[in-house]
Amino acid sequence: MYVILVYDMDSKRVGKMLKLCRQYLNWIQNSVFEGAISEVKLKELLSKAKLIMDEETDSLIIFKSREERWLEKEVIGKEKNDLDNLL
Amino acid sequence: MYVILVYDMDSKRVGKMLKLCRQYLNWIQNSVFEGAISEVKLKELLSKAKLIMDEETDSLIIFKSREERWLEKEVIGKEKNDLDNLL
Repeated sequence: MYVILVYDMDSKRVGKMLKLCRQYLNWIQNSVFEGAISEVKLKELLSKAKLIMDEETDSLIIFKSREERWLEKEVIGKEKNDLDNLL
Repeated sequence: MYVILVYDMDSKRVGKMLKLCRQYLNWIQNSVFEGAISEVKLKELLSKAKLIMDEETDSLIIFKSREERWLEKEVIGKEKNDLDNLL
């Protein structure tokens, strides 16, 4: 499965969420991640994310596609390379 | 065509970009939009976006899918409703 994950969190929690998501997916933009992931690993990621989030105010959206080739990606402007952004 | 659009811009330009994207797509999260759009309209949106962006520092990513049903969306936490967020 191929996913795109975006979140909008309070800045107090954003560092933790970033660290979590980078363990599972590729960081492609501030608060945007993508990558191939299994159902099991995605479930694991989401249950950990829920522990970090305040579900009243924070938001996390996942788009899932069975096949990566069904999604075409176009980047305009600065391309974030995860390897350049090791914290 | 169905697209997901995410941007990461300097706060000085973010208001203009938000206003532009909302003319073409549905706003689903801070700096994240989705919706059905024609090739022609998407080209129009992207050329207008380039006029707003500083391509050295800002970033805009578009994921395109031929069919909306190829993408499954899951929202955790607060769901933004575009109608609730008229500026």
